[in-house]
Amino acid sequence: MTNENLDFTIDCLGQPAIDSPIVLSKVIDDYVADYAEDGHYVLYDIDVKDDQDSLKTGRLEVAGPREKIYFKPDEVRAAICTCGGLCPGLNDVIRSIVMCLWYRYGVKTIYGIKFGYRGLIEKFNLPMIQLTPQEVDDIHRDGGTILGSSRGYGDHTSEIVDKLDSMGINMLFTIGGDGTQKGALDIAEEAKKRNLELTVVGIPKTIDNDLSFVQKSFGFETAVEKAVDAVAGAHVEAHDAMNGIGIVKVMGRESGYIAAHTALAINDVNYVFIPEVPFDLDGPNGLLAHLESRLQRRNHAVILIAEGAGQDLIDAEGTDASGNKNLGDIGILLKDKIKTHFKTKQQEINLKYIDPSYIIRSAPANAADSIYCARLGTNAAHAAMAGKNGCLVGLVHNRFVHIPIKLSVAKRNKINPDSDLWRSVVEATGQPLLMKN
Amino acid sequence: MTNENLDFTIDCLGQPAIDSPIVLSKVIDDYVADYAEDGHYVLYDIDVKDDQDSLKTGRLEVAGPREKIYFKPDEVRAAICTCGGLCPGLNDVIRSIVMCLWYRYGVKTIYGIKFGYRGLIEKFNLPMIQLTPQEVDDIHRDGGTILGSSRGYGDHTSEIVDKLDSMGINMLFTIGGDGTQKGALDIAEEAKKRNLELTVVGIPKTIDNDLSFVQKSFGFETAVEKAVDAVAGAHVEAHDAMNGIGIVKVMGRESGYIAAHTALAINDVNYVFIPEVPFDLDGPNGLLAHLESRLQRRNHAVILIAEGAGQDLIDAEGTDASGNKNLGDIGILLKDKIKTHFKTKQQEINLKYIDPSYIIRSAPANAADSIYCARLGTNAAHAAMAGKNGCLVGLVHNRFVHIPIKLSVAKRNKINPDSDLWRSVVEATGQPLLMKN
Amino acid sequence: MTNENLDFTIDCLGQPAIDSPIVLSKVIDDYVADYAEDGHYVLYDIDVKDDQDSLKTGRLEVAGPREKIYFKPDEVRAAICTCGGLCPGLNDVIRSIVMCLWYRYGVKTIYGIKFGYRGLIEKFNLPMIQLTPQEVDDIHRDGGTILGSSRGYGDHTSEIVDKLDSMGINMLFTIGGDGTQKGALDIAEEAKKRNLELTVVGIPKTIDNDLSFVQKSFGFETAVEKAVDAVAGAHVEAHDAMNGIGIVKVMGRESGYIAAHTALAINDVNYVFIPEVPFDLDGPNGLLAHLESRLQRRNHAVILIAEGAGQDLIDAEGTDASGNKNLGDIGILLKDKIKTHFKTKQQEINLKYIDPSYIIRSAPANAADSIYCARLGTNAAHAAMAGKNGCLVGLVHNRFVHIPIKLSVAKRNKINPDSDLWRSVVEATGQPLLMKN
Amino acid sequence: MTNENLDFTIDCLGQPAIDSPIVLSKVIDDYVADYAEDGHYVLYDIDVKDDQDSLKTGRLEVAGPREKIYFKPDEVRAAICTCGGLCPGLNDVIRSIVMCLWYRYGVKTIYGIKFGYRGLIEKFNLPMIQLTPQEVDDIHRDGGTILGSSRGYGDHTSEIVDKLDSMGINMLFTIGGDGTQKGALDIAEEAKKRNLELTVVGIPKTIDNDLSFVQKSFGFETAVEKAVDAVAGAHVEAHDAMNGIGIVKVMGRESGYIAAHTALAINDVNYVFIPEVPFDLDGPNGLLAHLESRLQRRNHAVILIAEGAGQDLIDAEGTDASGNKNLGDIGILLKDKIKTHFKTKQQEINLKYIDPSYIIRSAPANAADSIYCARLGTNAAHAAMAGKNGCLVGLVHNRFVHIPIKLSVAKRNKINPDSDLWRSVVEATGQPLLMKN
Repeated sequence: MTNENLDFTIDCLGQPAIDSPIVLSKVIDDYVADYAEDGHYVLYDIDVKDDQDSLKTGRLEVAGPREKIYFKPDEVRAAICTCGGLCPGLNDVIRSIVMCLWYRYGVKTIYGIKFGYRGLIEKFNLPMIQLTPQEVDDIHRDGGTILGSSRGYGDHTSEIVDKLDSMGINMLFTIGGDGTQKGALDIAEEAKKRNLELTVVGIPKTIDNDLSFVQKSFGFETAVEKAVDAVAGAHVEAHDAMNGIGIVKVMGRESGYIAAHTALAINDVNYVFIPEVPFDLDGPNGLLAHLESRLQRRNHAVILIAEGAGQDLIDAEGTDASGNKNLGDIGILLKDKIKTHFKTKQQEINLKYIDPSYIIRSAPANAADSIYCARLGTNAAHAAMAGKNGCLVGLVHNRFVHIPIKLSVAKRNKINPDSDLWRSVVEATGQPLLMKN
Repeated sequence: MTNENLDFTIDCLGQPAIDSPIVLSKVIDDYVADYAEDGHYVLYDIDVKDDQDSLKTGRLEVAGPREKIYFKPDEVRAAICTCGGLCPGLNDVIRSIVMCLWYRYGVKTIYGIKFGYRGLIEKFNLPMIQLTPQEVDDIHRDGGTILGSSRGYGDHTSEIVDKLDSMGINMLFTIGGDGTQKGALDIAEEAKKRNLELTVVGIPKTIDNDLSFVQKSFGFETAVEKAVDAVAGAHVEAHDAMNGIGIVKVMGRESGYIAAHTALAINDVNYVFIPEVPFDLDGPNGLLAHLESRLQRRNHAVILIAEGAGQDLIDAEGTDASGNKNLGDIGILLKDKIKTHFKTKQQEINLKYIDPSYIIRSAPANAADSIYCARLGTNAAHAAMAGKNGCLVGLVHNRFVHIPIKLSVAKRNKINPDSDLWRSVVEATGQPLLMKN
Repeated sequence: MTNENLDFTIDCLGQPAIDSPIVLSKVIDDYVADYAEDGHYVLYDIDVKDDQDSLKTGRLEVAGPREKIYFKPDEVRAAICTCGGLCPGLNDVIRSIVMCLWYRYGVKTIYGIKFGYRGLIEKFNLPMIQLTPQEVDDIHRDGGTILGSSRGYGDHTSEIVDKLDSMGINMLFTIGGDGTQKGALDIAEEAKKRNLELTVVGIPKTIDNDLSFVQKSFGFETAVEKAVDAVAGAHVEAHDAMNGIGIVKVMGRESGYIAAHTALAINDVNYVFIPEVPFDLDGPNGLLAHLESRLQRRNHAVILIAEGAGQDLIDAEGTDASGNKNLGDIGILLKDKIKTHFKTKQQEINLKYIDPSYIIRSAPANAADSIYCARLGTNAAHAAMAGKNGCLVGLVHNRFVHIPIKLSVAKRNKINPDSDLWRSVVEATGQPLLMKN
Repeated sequence: MTNENLDFTIDCLGQPAIDSPIVLSKVIDDYVADYAEDGHYVLYDIDVKDDQDSLKTGRLEVAGPREKIYFKPDEVRAAICTCGGLCPGLNDVIRSIVMCLWYRYGVKTIYGIKFGYRGLIEKFNLPMIQLTPQEVDDIHRDGGTILGSSRGYGDHTSEIVDKLDSMGINMLFTIGGDGTQKGALDIAEEAKKRNLELTVVGIPKTIDNDLSFVQKSFGFETAVEKAVDAVAGAHVEAHDAMNGIGIVKVMGRESGYIAAHTALAINDVNYVFIPEVPFDLDGPNGLLAHLESRLQRRNHAVILIAEGAGQDLIDAEGTDASGNKNLGDIGILLKDKIKTHFKTKQQEINLKYIDPSYIIRSAPANAADSIYCARLGTNAAHAAMAGKNGCLVGLVHNRFVHIPIKLSVAKRNKINPDSDLWRSVVEATGQPLLMKN
């Protein structure tokens, strides 16, 4: 977490020299909203210890509309694509980029790319959509993305740049996760090599909340809200049956944020398992022993598990867990292990297993996520118009900032088990501090 | 916003010398949650400008469970009171304080004070409630507060301290706003004068989001969600009638956060008015002129107004607007003025006025607010057990910290019209930058 | 309730002689859905008493697609209009009429009339909308009506028929209440006089549920659901304040169905007042006396009042209550009377008044109402294609039937105080059987 | 459906001779709710055809409070049990029985039996709960049942009657489905044999809506509402992926009501499969062929399947589908078959499978179901106090009536494919009339 070596510098296509068509104030205390300034930052590392001095250097450029912009609005040919799994709020982001470009800057050429990077790959032969305010006016009420989405093809940089070039696109918005943004960075670099005028601005999308340098992913709160519904169901089922056990599996391949927050939001979870904290099934400090003792005391139990948790247990079982992309199904493993365990003990249990994944990610954004998406999209449009390149728009310490893609994809955002978030979860569930023998 | 003169020091009843019954880790990277440390802070002022050095000094103590605590758990006699208007999440906060004190520390004497400070005033003769985990287990599913609430009596310091003293209460949690926390501070100081061992920890409650040094009030997101429903109704009514005008009045006496966020969450608001930004009704740049022109172009309009906005207009009308406590009704004023205006112009309009206030504030907390409340309450319990006194638990830069009550009540948190929040609102609505002639 | 003199005969433009393009089965037990038959009815009066024989004669024609239809689909020029106040489900009905006409029958000329009957009145000069499946595909997700609505002009029969004639419209769907359907009948009769081929089919819309011969209005369940939210808020506010009183006013000019069902859905209402049952404020059996005694026993009370209740009380107060169209505001009257009463008694109360009307009626339909609307619209399309004229499509004894408009508008549907519905309400609230002195 | 041989007579423990403590009116038009009368019925068969006379004889006794009751309230020892799978509204029913017995009749001995019939079987040694208004006041806000539930043991008649006898229970309310009510009837008959004074009244509970003589099961609307959410998710996932296919499996072992109504409520389902209508996978008129052609035309498809549909296909696959209790998993079969089919055709598809079952059935009741449950429970209490025995309380033609259990369990309620309900579904989805070769 040291920030000494981090380079927060944002690349820019060139010196912004054009007067923004957006009229804002430069005067303080005139009741009128102000431009954002290039020389304005927020500190990145804000932790201070008593025995340290507090000279902090890493700093993030604040986002927002600049007085001078790089692009002439009528020369902009923008394109937006959405990649990877669905996430609440995608349509909100698309909508706000279009609305800001169109109404605030007067940009009238905005393409929607179909099905992620595939829409830029020749062989898929997918049409572009013309995006207008009328087209996007109501889309935020629906889950999903009007552009469609797909995985992969972020590594077809050359083909993609060919296509962008052939269509004269000089502004690309990439809404997606880790892989998408790596692809976006490659595109930005390839364009630079070819001397193409292209700015690439990413909007980080990861329902797992696992992108670094981003306080909270858009759609995350909505996902938690939906996961809470599933856990509520599991709790009722567990509570109202004899020796009822409810298991809910939620998203979270490498980080357990959804599981952790869901457990905090609903006070009926007894055990939470996340990828960041290992656990045992067997042995005196394993889940099965704890579960047995809990059923004796309380007659029911609710388990919440992130899909990426306990992957070592699956390996141990001989199941092939070939890397990140092919997780073993820990939910099914838990279900089977628990059933077998209590069958052996000749104890009747009533186990209900709930896997709500698609219901969670296809929901429309709730109010808080709608606000967040609207501001992300607007700030992305401002960044692109100012010629900012190869950066993400994100929220850090509750402030909208520009983050170099390079930094953001360097490592995953994970729950720190030493942190107060994980401590809060352990306090809320009352589960053992660590279920390892 | 300069922090040079701000004193962030947290008072403590004495040196915490008792081993906490909560077992946590002090080791990094052992997968086990850690204690919070007294010598750990977060910077308060995190803005940096190019032409400034970044030596920042103001810093806030992080909240959380300490390894050493001040109170012996079996000597604690805690009390909780909820004051002022209702707000989503009150029961969540009560619940989490009780659960943390009871299960984590083993405190078994926890009183619920009925109807705010009144429950500590002799003449009201109100009984105390014994709070136990069973009593509070399900309360977070309901809006409101199981303790009841009332306004006022925060200034009856002496009587209140008499009562606390007579009951042997040595730990007081005050859930309330500005006035409540001022009262809490007076109580803490009076107790100190009398040499009573009493720690007072506040949980800031203000649906208007107007407490300083607090990033976001609990219940605020829920309130916005509910306000969005009301505006959605207003928009449908306005849109589906000939020359339809929908007016929605929301809470916000001195700050317009609910109005601002609601407008961002739903994209159908055309004019937002908040207490922080003045506006005219008449004249070429007044609301009536803009409304007239909008009806000609678009046939409908939606206006969102915070209750504290435009108070000068009401004075001008001869209505008595005697200070903070007796706001003139700006919603009714707008309604009447608009009706008269178009009647004079002989233009038919269909005006619908919606005032959803109680529906908003009596709702149960949504998932995000539940999480927030649970963590606020838990951290308040930790603070009190450590002997922290005269402080609030709050969220700053997304971190839970201790804030001296003195600082927090010194001035109101208001929307800065120069900020990116207000800029976002103006961008989203497309309203004139300032509607003053 | 005697049905001897009721004429349930449905008028038809002529003998349906054209084969329906819709292919259905005429065979029983072949797993394939069947046509509806003209000679199939359901009994209207199904009550039997021991001392009566059960020979029942009044019978309603069942709705549904006929094997033979009257109109050639490619000669149909249909039009849809929505009149009166908004109601959840309007867009669902529009959608299902369009979908059925277009996809099932192949009708390609469907006009949407703007703002109710005004769209057929020359002087308003309102354009017609072409309705296509694409246009209406998603509209049911929104509250309100894409066509807009307005009150009145149902009595401009001649002008309206001129307009329909000039546009060659031969099929008119009128979605509206009492006044709208009276207008629809006049239009049908005027067209007949002029020898115009025009079929008029109504879909009854009345959020108050006050149309006779219709078991349940569409949107009614959604309205109750929303009213429940408002009452929940009122209950929390009343319960959590000292001597809290919550008053909620809901729609219901001449019938109290919304109030009655809302009270049954939420068990926190103490007094329900509806237009069908008179009540006193003063005197030993009046509301004020009961309220006083309840506050002494329980410290809080929730009152739910339909807007049309207690109108005699308002007259008594000298307020002008000039007929149906200008109800005195019983909610405000209650509020003022109660405040004055307890002020006189020098008893502190905390009264909160909630009037959620527009929020209720502008909501999108819930699942049950969506189903109902979809089936109403589809059956209306079938009826019109078969040449049925001057009739409504409605639900009676849970069956979709054709109802002559003439019967339906003859008198209002009201709650019978002798019925089990009102008995259920009185049982649920525990209120006095009749609050009259 | 002929009702000639149906015996609707309701058994009664004896002549009700005690004045009811409930005061109601016997006068018409006095604004006061009336008693229900024993000699008042509603016709059961209300269909009439042109060529039939309409002399109908089958008739159902109306439910409601009688002027004379059978039991002395202070001699009543009532018990309530909930059996089988969870269903929205169980707590509402429990609550309303308790409230009516306690407040309306003055019955103060009401037991809650734990975990269905198990609570009456000695070996499980389960304690009874004392049910009081305070105990049940808020329970309707939660899904599930405070009594817990379990399957089976309805056939342990003798043991159960021993237990009821030993506890002096003379009034038993059984909330459950087919098996539960058969058990209830056996209990009633065994008690009669033993000359025990015991009245047994059932409240039909079947989320599948498959009980005969019951218009609509309680919880059914809520279940549909939740199923709609799942289908909405499936639609978004299908629509936003290349060749996306969404499959949702919902409850419905022998009848497809949830699937049918869900498809009507949301207009995005393309194929609905229910137990009542067979279908093929292969062949020119099978699902796979239709799906292939649909993907070519529309690129996505949504399939909704009731768990009991297509069981013959599973047999054909060699899967063991041993009778009613062990359904083969048609959802998984569909998923696998479709995947294999398109793999063979080398066509990329994106298939998402959603099984929301427990989320659906554990939800709290929505407003309409709450009303229904409240009225069912109240009427059950009235029936029992009047000494009605071996009957259910149900809704027929929108009227609350008494139904002999014997009739109700004689056969399942199923969707008639010839009916207008199934026709509506086929019209809404546009699916082939029958997908059989």
